Amino acid sequence: MKIAQLGEFGFISRLRRQCPPGPGVRLGIGDDCAALEIPPGELLLTTTDLLLEQVHFRREWTDWHRLGRKSVAVNVSDIAAMGGTPRYLFLALALPADLEVTALDAFIDGFLAAAADYGASLAGGDTCRSPGPLLISVTAEGSVPAGELVGRSGARPGDAIYVSGTLGDSALALRQLLAGEAPEAFLAERHHNPSARTGLGRALAAARLATAMVDLSDGLVADLGHLLTASGVGGRVATASLPLSPAFRAALAAEPALLELALAGGEDYELLFTVPPERAAELPPLAAQLGLALTRVGELTSGPGLVLVDAQRQERTPGRGGFDHFAG
Amino acid sequence: MKIAQLGEFGFISRLRRQCPPGPGVRLGIGDDCAALEIPPGELLLTTTDLLLEQVHFRREWTDWHRLGRKSVAVNVSDIAAMGGTPRYLFLALALPADLEVTALDAFIDGFLAAAADYGASLAGGDTCRSPGPLLISVTAEGSVPAGELVGRSGARPGDAIYVSGTLGDSALALRQLLAGEAPEAFLAERHHNPSARTGLGRALAAARLATAMVDLSDGLVADLGHLLTASGVGGRVATASLPLSPAFRAALAAEPALLELALAGGEDYELLFTVPPERAAELPPLAAQLGLALTRVGELTSGPGLVLVDAQRQERTPGRGGFDHFAG
Repeated sequence: MKIAQLGEFGFISRLRRQCPPGPGVRLGIGDDCAALEIPPGELLLTTTDLLLEQVHFRREWTDWHRLGRKSVAVNVSDIAAMGGTPRYLFLALALPADLEVTALDAFIDGFLAAAADYGASLAGGDTCRSPGPLLISVTAEGSVPAGELVGRSGARPGDAIYVSGTLGDSALALRQLLAGEAPEAFLAERHHNPSARTGLGRALAAARLATAMVDLSDGLVADLGHLLTASGVGGRVATASLPLSPAFRAALAAEPALLELALAGGEDYELLFTVPPERAAELPPLAAQLGLALTRVGELTSGPGLVLVDAQRQERTPGRGGFDHFAG
Repeated sequence: MKIAQLGEFGFISRLRRQCPPGPGVRLGIGDDCAALEIPPGELLLTTTDLLLEQVHFRREWTDWHRLGRKSVAVNVSDIAAMGGTPRYLFLALALPADLEVTALDAFIDGFLAAAADYGASLAGGDTCRSPGPLLISVTAEGSVPAGELVGRSGARPGDAIYVSGTLGDSALALRQLLAGEAPEAFLAERHHNPSARTGLGRALAAARLATAMVDLSDGLVADLGHLLTASGVGGRVATASLPLSPAFRAALAAEPALLELALAGGEDYELLFTVPPERAAELPPLAAQLGLALTRVGELTSGPGLVLVDAQRQERTPGRGGFDHFAG
C-alpha cells in the first residue's frame, strides 16, 4: 500500500492509537495544539532539526527503523547539551506519494522506540505530501531546573575540555558510504543510529560540573569554536588525546589524514563540555557510573581562537570547519 | 546574491542580530536549544505546521513578505484555538541554493513583523539547503492558564455554534488563482495574509465562554466534524447563516455552487467555537469590543454527525470534506 491510499487522516488516526498521551501530556495528537506540563521551577528547552533526503540521508543507505531512531536522537542530543530532560516530541513529515506504508510504519516504530528510550512522548505534528524528497522536521521539548541550565557562554580560561565517547566514527562511515564501500557494523551503527548522551548531560548539570557544553553535530572544531566565541575564550586541543574507536584507529593507521574526520567530520552526537580544573577528579567516577568514556582533550586559554597541538608539539590554527549546508 | 554565497552561518548570524532575545527568552538563537520561561500555573501549548512550495504556496502567486507573515499566522491560529497566548516561534527552512537573498530577507522581515504583532519571539530554528522545493517548518509555543484551556471535546448538545469573521474568502482566491484569474485585493489578502484570532481566543478562554474551539484551516465541515467527534455530539448548521464577505457574496450570486468553498474550502483561519445557549448574550458585546463579526451558524445535537440545512429547510449530510494532503 502506498501513502496516497492510506490517506492523511488514516495515518493520523493510526498514529494516535499508537501514542496514548504520555506523562505530562494533557492533550496530545488530535487537537489544534498539544497542551503540556512543564515542572514548576524549570525552564522550557526547545530545539528543532530538519532531516532531508539527499541532504542528510539517502534511502539506499539506511533502514527506516534506524532513520526514525536517528530523527529523535539528533534532537534529544541538543536537550542533553543544555543539561535537560527530554519530554515531548513533534514530528512533521512531507511524504512522497509513492512511499510505501511499510516504510513509514518502520520509521514510526523507530521514532517511537527511541522516544520511549529517552522518556519522551510524541505529542503532535503535521503531515503533507511532498512533490520532491522526503522531509522530516522534528521539534523536541525538554526542561531543566532554572539554576542548572548549561549554555555555551560560561567557560573560563583554565577550564579543561572534555568529550564523551569517541570521535569521527560517523564521518568515517559516511566517507566510506560516499566511496561506495560498506562500513563495518560498528561504524555504520554510529552513523545511522547515534545515541544522545542524556544521562551524561543531566548528571553534569545536576552536579553543576560543566561550565559550558555543546553537542558535537558539526564536528569538534566548529562546535568548540562556537563555545569559545560564546564564552570569549580560546582553547588548545591536543590531537593525540582525541578519543578514537578501534575501528577508527585501524583506518587512521592506513591513512593518517583521516584524523580530520575526528576533528571536523560532524555527526558525532557526543557532548563536549568544560570543567574547572579543581573538579576534574569527579569525572572518572562519573564515567564509570555511566559506562561512557569521558576524555580530556585540552584546556581553555585567554584566547582568542583554537590551537591544535599534535604529538610532535607542532601547533596549527584550524579552518573554521563544520558543514555549511548552503554551500554544500 | 544567492543563498549559497551568504552561507548558513552568515544567515544565522544576521538573523541573530535582527532578533535580540524577547520576553521570557533566557537563551535564544545560537545555543543548542532555546531556554524559555513559561508563566507559573500555565500549560505549554505547542503546534507545528509545514508550508511546502507547490503544495501550500507557489512563488509566482505570493510575495515573500506576506509568505513570512502567513507562516507565523497559521501556527499562531492553533494557539488561539486553545485560548492561549503565543510566546515563542521556531523556524526551520530548507532553501534552494539559487534562492535570492533579497527574497529570504523579505520573508524574514514578514515573519518577524507578524511575530511582533502577536507578541511572540523567534527563539531558534534550523536551516539546510533543499535539492527540491522551498520548505518552511514552523513550530509555535504558547501558554494558557491551566483552568482556561479550551480543547475540542467539551461541547454539549444544545450549545450554539459560532464562527468569527467570514468564510470562503481564501478558498475563493485560491480557486481564482488556479484558474489563472487575479482575485480582487480583499480576497487575495485573505488568502496570502490571514490574521490569527488571538484576541478572540484568549477572551473566550478567559471568560470560560467557549465549551470547545477549533481553528478553521481545513474548512468548516471538516474542522467542525473533528470537534463533533471529539465531543461525541452532532451538529446542525444553517447554510444561509454562514458569514460571507461582500466579495464572496458577489461571486456566489453569479455561481451558487461556490457556497461549497465557504463550507469546505479551508484556510479561513477563523475560530469556530461552541457556547452554552444561556451565555449567547455575551457575544455581541465581545464582537463589538474586538471589532470582529461573531456569527451563530447552528447548534449542537445529540448526534451523531453533521447536518446542513439550507434556506428551503432541505437537509443534507455533507461528505467528510477537508483537504487530504496525501491524496491531493
